[in-house]
Amino acid sequence: MEITKKVRGGDVRAASRLIRNLEDRIPLAKDSIKHIFPHTGKAHVIGFTGSPGAGKSTMIDCLVAELRKRNKTVGVLLVDPTSPFTGGAILGDRIRMQRHATDPGVFVRSLATRGALGGLAKAVGDAIHVMDAMGKDFVIVETVGTGQQEVDIINHAHTVVVVLVPGMGDEIQAIKAGILEIADIFVINKADREGAGKLYRELVYMLSMVDKFPGGWKPPIIRAENIFAMDSFQRSLDEMTNTIDQHYQNLIEKGLLGDRIRRKAVLELNEALLSAILDPILTKLVESGEMKEMTDKLLKKETDPYTLAEGVASKYLVMPDV
Amino acid sequence: MEITKKVRGGDVRAASRLIRNLEDRIPLAKDSIKHIFPHTGKAHVIGFTGSPGAGKSTMIDCLVAELRKRNKTVGVLLVDPTSPFTGGAILGDRIRMQRHATDPGVFVRSLATRGALGGLAKAVGDAIHVMDAMGKDFVIVETVGTGQQEVDIINHAHTVVVVLVPGMGDEIQAIKAGILEIADIFVINKADREGAGKLYRELVYMLSMVDKFPGGWKPPIIRAENIFAMDSFQRSLDEMTNTIDQHYQNLIEKGLLGDRIRRKAVLELNEALLSAILDPILTKLVESGEMKEMTDKLLKKETDPYTLAEGVASKYLVMPDV
Repeated sequence: MEITKKVRGGDVRAASRLIRNLEDRIPLAKDSIKHIFPHTGKAHVIGFTGSPGAGKSTMIDCLVAELRKRNKTVGVLLVDPTSPFTGGAILGDRIRMQRHATDPGVFVRSLATRGALGGLAKAVGDAIHVMDAMGKDFVIVETVGTGQQEVDIINHAHTVVVVLVPGMGDEIQAIKAGILEIADIFVINKADREGAGKLYRELVYMLSMVDKFPGGWKPPIIRAENIFAMDSFQRSLDEMTNTIDQHYQNLIEKGLLGDRIRRKAVLELNEALLSAILDPILTKLVESGEMKEMTDKLLKKETDPYTLAEGVASKYLVMPDV
Repeated sequence: MEITKKVRGGDVRAASRLIRNLEDRIPLAKDSIKHIFPHTGKAHVIGFTGSPGAGKSTMIDCLVAELRKRNKTVGVLLVDPTSPFTGGAILGDRIRMQRHATDPGVFVRSLATRGALGGLAKAVGDAIHVMDAMGKDFVIVETVGTGQQEVDIINHAHTVVVVLVPGMGDEIQAIKAGILEIADIFVINKADREGAGKLYRELVYMLSMVDKFPGGWKPPIIRAENIFAMDSFQRSLDEMTNTIDQHYQNLIEKGLLGDRIRRKAVLELNEALLSAILDPILTKLVESGEMKEMTDKLLKKETDPYTLAEGVASKYLVMPDV
């Protein structure tokens, strides 16, 4: 296919269009992904997550600059938190990552949810494939991480970096958000701020409670100084970049990269199943007016959602035991 | 059914067990919900969302005390952010809401995700039904809101309160998170902190850009003083409680309550459909070993997720046009 060739050749316009079409679930784009899929699996995918305001975007911006200094090409996917009404991506790639705009070695795209169940994680997975097929050495995915959807998104990464910042009120929030379990590397940003020591000690304590880390990789905690103190920041940036590399090497050496890749494959298959199975049924229900009828019945309390859903399942599914 | 009667009689142990069973997707619990469903729809459901560390739990704790002073009974659902590995609910209801533990007019439960797609929003909807059927005047749902799942959860509420706090770094994050569109009431917590004025002005500006609010309800912005300054806090608490009441009255007067209830019904139906259609197919695929086979093929790059998913859909769905 023409577009597959263009994407593999690194054509930015073709890749941008394909990513947008995948996001919009245009059937032809799905076909393109089928052709691109065999040419993927080479890029090191790095996920960045953390609370809003933790300074992830700035940090990624610096990481991109550092990777470019090391002669690596980079794709960046900025996943905007849900804005189900406006369609999200208000900030978009326009105002972030400005300084890399003219560098052909950097390809930046924003993705936002379009309200479809599970749709965003799938769009992210596809966009990673596109950047991977373009030949980018690294693909960096940024999301705001607390919910299941964000965890699904970040599970596309080989290396997960969790960015924390002191003084967000309650440091135990880090535990609540369940990010301990998905982090490969912790970065305490703005580590010169009050509360940084407390946050560091809490993380150390949390990690001390874990019996055994897969592959013996105990997530390192990097303390990043304020970006404006340039000398110390460069030290932190070097440390972060090197640690990210070490994590990937560790995955390979301990034979764990296969597990991560399998985790990604299972995730992608589930997302594809969700869409392939549910979309046609929902479309049918809406177009035939059944969805409205069922909703009306619910409002009159004539029946309940479970009974209705079972009715739909028995009508549309062929299964010996349903 | 015995359990339905017990729940309607306000039996705390029966209700707790039912909520846990619903969360664990025990089939019998689904039957109980079918019986409970006709007895629901009386409670005023209030959703609280906002960034981690915004002080939502403390605020809800105070709101519960205030509602109790007004002789109202209250159910509280604390939805823990995802912890897909530990099963979440680390903090749980044990350490929050302590002072209401012995008050029979207050019923507090925590819910955490169990990793199932769309499962949490459904469990929240069901738990609201249980508390509603118990006869609680108010059901308060707390979640941390940025992702699609959190929006799904908060859409179960009639009145959505968004809690913000100054100094989280970048106030524009509020826009990014798309919470403007779902908020009925904004509360600026810790309004005596630096940056509160800026946050207030930004919210006012954001709201000024909206042409028309449904039912003419322009979300009010409440500035809550620090909880330790008790006098001013009580004023803020009165203001918040009264505003929540006014919002509900406005929904009724403008005939908008029906729209909210319809929105909830559509959401619940979608969640029930997701589970009724997808669960049996996924179970089948896992038990038959097909899921493993498909994953292996993906890892060998023999095929792609879309092609596999289409194969599954055509095998399990009866549809003229699939």
